[in-house]
Amino acid sequence: MTVLFDKVCLIGIGLIGSSLSHAMRAGKLAGRIDVYDHDAEARTVTVELGLADQVHDNVAGAVMDADLVILCVPAGAVADLAPEIAKSLKTGAILSDVGSVKQAVVRDLGPHVPDKVHFIPGHPIAGTEYSGPRAGFADLFKGRWCILTPLPGTDPKAIERLQLLWEKMGSQVELMEPGHHDQVLAITSHLPHLIAYTIVGTATGLEETTQREVIKFSASGFRDFTRIAASDPIMWRDVFLNNREAVLEMLGRFTEDLTALQRAIRWGEGEKLQEWFTRTRAIRRSIIDAKQA
Amino acid sequence: MTVLFDKVCLIGIGLIGSSLSHAMRAGKLAGRIDVYDHDAEARTVTVELGLADQVHDNVAGAVMDADLVILCVPAGAVADLAPEIAKSLKTGAILSDVGSVKQAVVRDLGPHVPDKVHFIPGHPIAGTEYSGPRAGFADLFKGRWCILTPLPGTDPKAIERLQLLWEKMGSQVELMEPGHHDQVLAITSHLPHLIAYTIVGTATGLEETTQREVIKFSASGFRDFTRIAASDPIMWRDVFLNNREAVLEMLGRFTEDLTALQRAIRWGEGEKLQEWFTRTRAIRRSIIDAKQA
Ligand SMILES: NC(=O)c1ccc[n+]([C@@H]2O[C@H](COP(=O)([O-])OP(=O)(O)OC[C@H]3O[C@@H](n4cnc5c(N)ncnc54)[C@H](OP(=O)(O)O)[C@@H]3O)[C@@H](O)[C@H]2O)c1
Ligand SMILES: NC(=O)c1ccc[n+]([C@@H]2O[C@H](COP(=O)([O-])OP(=O)(O)OC[C@H]3O[C@@H](n4cnc5c(N)ncnc54)[C@H](OP(=O)(O)O)[C@@H]3O)[C@@H](O)[C@H]2O)c1
Repeated sequence: MTVLFDKVCLIGIGLIGSSLSHAMRAGKLAGRIDVYDHDAEARTVTVELGLADQVHDNVAGAVMDADLVILCVPAGAVADLAPEIAKSLKTGAILSDVGSVKQAVVRDLGPHVPDKVHFIPGHPIAGTEYSGPRAGFADLFKGRWCILTPLPGTDPKAIERLQLLWEKMGSQVELMEPGHHDQVLAITSHLPHLIAYTIVGTATGLEETTQREVIKFSASGFRDFTRIAASDPIMWRDVFLNNREAVLEMLGRFTEDLTALQRAIRWGEGEKLQEWFTRTRAIRRSIIDAKQA
Repeated sequence: MTVLFDKVCLIGIGLIGSSLSHAMRAGKLAGRIDVYDHDAEARTVTVELGLADQVHDNVAGAVMDADLVILCVPAGAVADLAPEIAKSLKTGAILSDVGSVKQAVVRDLGPHVPDKVHFIPGHPIAGTEYSGPRAGFADLFKGRWCILTPLPGTDPKAIERLQLLWEKMGSQVELMEPGHHDQVLAITSHLPHLIAYTIVGTATGLEETTQREVIKFSASGFRDFTRIAASDPIMWRDVFLNNREAVLEMLGRFTEDLTALQRAIRWGEGEKLQEWFTRTRAIRRSIIDAKQA
């Protein structure tokens, strides 16, 4: 394969950052990879696993001369990093990220981006419940979508270059408006995580003997929720704080529906329940047909 | 292996009934297997797949002379079947079931059970989102729990015999009081299913373009919910109608917790969110340690 970017800089080397390194190494897509992380332990692991050609403990050094800079930190860390990154970016560089919320990064990073730097926010729809630099693997993005949310007026050639990188890592790319991204992800990702966190927390509030049984008999449905609710707390705190409006809007709809089903259970309205449960089966079918199952 | 029961009668041959047939055949645990189902199509499939030595279109004939009768029908079907079953049971037979709610079967079937028949309700904590006689397989119960909820005074020898059958099919058996079973399952199974059904339904209520994207980007969390929400509508209608109190009680706790998290999001209380999300991680750890992951 051909090198697509001579120097790539990854800022933050957790699950996503380390997976990017593995995937770019596997495809020989980057001439060299430089990594910055604020965490000494993460930097040590980066060296140990050979995730970088050079590891930096300051942002500016890592960003210097990079053709592509990708932020792979929690949404709440972007605002503080923005000025430091901005001042070291070279002319013609592409600046991207992998954050789960897109309006927030446009808000926090956008104003700092110098002219002649191509700012193209991104979000790979791929992940696991593990975090940290040891959690990454080269195939994470294979067969998955990556959403890019460039602002109007962005150079199409730069978008194409970044798109090609994701495609070489096995992803299909979709372009979307940041606000729309945040709405779609609120229902497909943020609300499911919030609900899973809630119910697993509810279970921890039960008396101790029941709690032991909850663990023992988790295979009956609960287990799937615990996997989701094991995801990184800081990442998810930042997602909810940074996509507040869309999450609250979807949560409102969900609560209305839940109240209606609760009422149907209380009043023994079997037909209403059966009709609802039948409708949801069709969605599963569509997901299987779309090969996302 | 040794035959544990000369004649086993399965009433209802869906996912669980057919899996029982496969598992008992594989272990040579039953001298013969007789099946009753009210559905002609299910009976045809039973013959086609060799799930029974004899297929019946009336309950009485199937139950006649059986040493073990297991009901494998939705909870709502038990009350109608009870008198028919009861009058054909032979002295010394064991009568059991696999239903997901246990107080209801004690209520609907219990009063009909003749003296000298051992009534031992059961519930295997094993399943998939598929239903019908083609969905079953011999290994469904392997490595899974089976809960038995005999009433006080039940012959311990009969319990032992039924327990041995489940163990030979690969399950571990736990004895429990029916009311306690219904409470534990309300949080580990019934509430997770209700919530999954709700959110998938909420998604179907969105405008059409968004709906297409929900399917496309389901890998971000939503997908796991759709699998749960593809479970059999009739079975689940009956679960909620028959375990109403415990489900409403757990739903009340869940809603309280969800409201608290909603408030934390609205007011930007990051610490509260992070603390909650950190606590739920520990539960996942326990499930992995308990080898139920
Ligand atoms: N996990 C997923 O499933 C997934 C999927 C798609 C997108 N994303 C997005 O990808 C981003 C990274 O997620 P992840 O799962 O890779 O998280 P992660 O495994 O927790 O890694 C984040 C890394 O960034 C470091 N970091 C935090 N603040 C920093 C700062 N101010 N400067 C430099 N480094 C900093 C962290 O170090 P410390 O831990 O020591 O603070 C950690 O090494 C997030 O924006 C997330 O929304 C995640
Ligand atoms: N699925 C799971 O994950 C799971 C796990 C543990 C326990 N259970 C319990 O196991 C039981 C069976 O569930 P399943 O998943 O095997 O359901 P299923 O695949 O839908 O099978 C139920 C079978 O019973 C038949 N049936 C319904 N009413 C009947 C009646 N009055 N007389 C005779 N047959 C009747 C159904 O026929 P028609 O479809 O034509 O009506 C179908 O063939 C339920 O009580 C459920 O709560 C299920």
